[in-house]
Amino acid sequence: MGVYAGIDIGGMSAKIGLVSLQGEILDSTSIVTEPNCFNKTVKEMADKLKELLERNNKELLGIGIGAPGIVDNDHGIVVSAVNLGWVKVDLKKEFEKYYSNIPISIGNDANVAALGEYRFGLDDDMLIKNMVFVTLGTGIGGGVILDGKLFTGTNGGGGEIGHSTLIHQGRKCNCSNRGCWEQYASATALVRQTKRAVAFNKDSILAQVARDRGIIDGMTSFIAARKHDCPIALKVIDKYVDYIVSGLITITNIVHPEVVLIGGGVSKEGDYLISKIQNKLDNYTKKSNYEPYIAIKAAKLLNNAGIIGSASLNM
Amino acid sequence: MGVYAGIDIGGMSAKIGLVSLQGEILDSTSIVTEPNCFNKTVKEMADKLKELLERNNKELLGIGIGAPGIVDNDHGIVVSAVNLGWVKVDLKKEFEKYYSNIPISIGNDANVAALGEYRFGLDDDMLIKNMVFVTLGTGIGGGVILDGKLFTGTNGGGGEIGHSTLIHQGRKCNCSNRGCWEQYASATALVRQTKRAVAFNKDSILAQVARDRGIIDGMTSFIAARKHDCPIALKVIDKYVDYIVSGLITITNIVHPEVVLIGGGVSKEGDYLISKIQNKLDNYTKKSNYEPYIAIKAAKLLNNAGIIGSASLNM
Repeated sequence: MGVYAGIDIGGMSAKIGLVSLQGEILDSTSIVTEPNCFNKTVKEMADKLKELLERNNKELLGIGIGAPGIVDNDHGIVVSAVNLGWVKVDLKKEFEKYYSNIPISIGNDANVAALGEYRFGLDDDMLIKNMVFVTLGTGIGGGVILDGKLFTGTNGGGGEIGHSTLIHQGRKCNCSNRGCWEQYASATALVRQTKRAVAFNKDSILAQVARDRGIIDGMTSFIAARKHDCPIALKVIDKYVDYIVSGLITITNIVHPEVVLIGGGVSKEGDYLISKIQNKLDNYTKKSNYEPYIAIKAAKLLNNAGIIGSASLNM
Repeated sequence: MGVYAGIDIGGMSAKIGLVSLQGEILDSTSIVTEPNCFNKTVKEMADKLKELLERNNKELLGIGIGAPGIVDNDHGIVVSAVNLGWVKVDLKKEFEKYYSNIPISIGNDANVAALGEYRFGLDDDMLIKNMVFVTLGTGIGGGVILDGKLFTGTNGGGGEIGHSTLIHQGRKCNCSNRGCWEQYASATALVRQTKRAVAFNKDSILAQVARDRGIIDGMTSFIAARKHDCPIALKVIDKYVDYIVSGLITITNIVHPEVVLIGGGVSKEGDYLISKIQNKLDNYTKKSNYEPYIAIKAAKLLNNAGIIGSASLNM
């Protein structure tokens, strides 16, 4: 049986995997990525892929690559990947130097993760055509599936849901705008909101949990809320869910998917978080006469979504 | 030659037209619409269409109907049209009682106007695949064209761009949410902003223009700014354009169309307004490394977009 290569490039490392037509990772490896080393990075990825193929003795049917930043899928170009220092690099062409007779496709990392979750992360019984994948991480990434296909907008500039406006002229964002959704609803934002609540409520159970754990992270408020029913923590989470849902309302009105998959570190809170998001969004769609309501689900592939999704670009 | 019927239903009246394959309105008429009279309204539209066809002696090739509210194009159902008191009415089926052997298609009024503008309102030399149409009127309506086709989301719930969030928990909106884009960037919002500026600056040229004209409307600030270079009016317009662009940034990041067409009453300000929107949006896309920039254009079909667009549903 042939296999599909999936490469998930990040700012620190690139993961390379062999994926079956059923979406299983058969074997994987990784390299360290450095900024401003485009040719070297591509060569290392190509070499590592060769090793993987030899080790597994498999026929290669296609190579899919997910890269961070703005990616022009149609032309195989990474328009801008700030963390890697890549500006308008022809990733597809460079990779073809090593694999000339194999189909090579590229996409934005979060976009291809969305494709992976769509193809292999949904329940079998769901016949979904339109889906939005939202990763709550350092920022908010994600991707949009329309009519069963990855939607990336003109020259790959669409699907950047984290930079939809949530608060006109609000918090400054790296994208040069202010008030982007990710400034309020990312895991980073939750940590900031939690720190603020701790600072203003030093005698709360939330502050106690923070002290006990020696760190304030995306889990702090959830631990204080779930284990100790701390009112301050519940308030932090309630407000955070409001921010998430406010951005989902934008997605509801523009895209109206059947399903929104929530991924990223925060999604590990599972049903506790998902049900809160679902209830608040239902409250809106119900009042606005939208039917059917949009199903909120936790993503399943998590860290593997990048490899599986990029591999699936050629399936 | 055969013709296509286009019917544009509004809260007060329905316009009925015969449209050529080239997008010209050959003849048109209208009826008064009343709330809660679904069957009667459909019958009157069907009768008027029959009159039009007889008067012009044309063969009917298809009927397209644009209705306000949430419309499920695929199933021909108006899910909810508040102003008409229609809830889950089977518009297509009801119309088929009068025209049983003719293709009948329905869509949301602003969505079909978008389709009309896309098919017949763009410059001939533009090869556009992705377009968003934004009408700045009582609210903000519009539509999304993706890959040359009208995109309406699951069960017609998408393309409601006016209800994307602009200010989290901001001004109350009819849709049951708060802070929708249309609460800040519609013509209604501009009038409110102008009234406020007049009230706070009674000695300004803006206030003088308002007094001279005996009314404060969407044109007031533009007249004071264009004719008299009034700083207060310029500030009102500048802030209003900020609101427009902030919502367009959401559209840029999610959809990334090649063109945004601006319609509605405010678009009559033409290049004066369009160039301001273009400059501010370019400023964002440039800093964010997006290419190509998104072209902002004034819509051309204006009041005819509804008839032409609904007719074009069957072309």
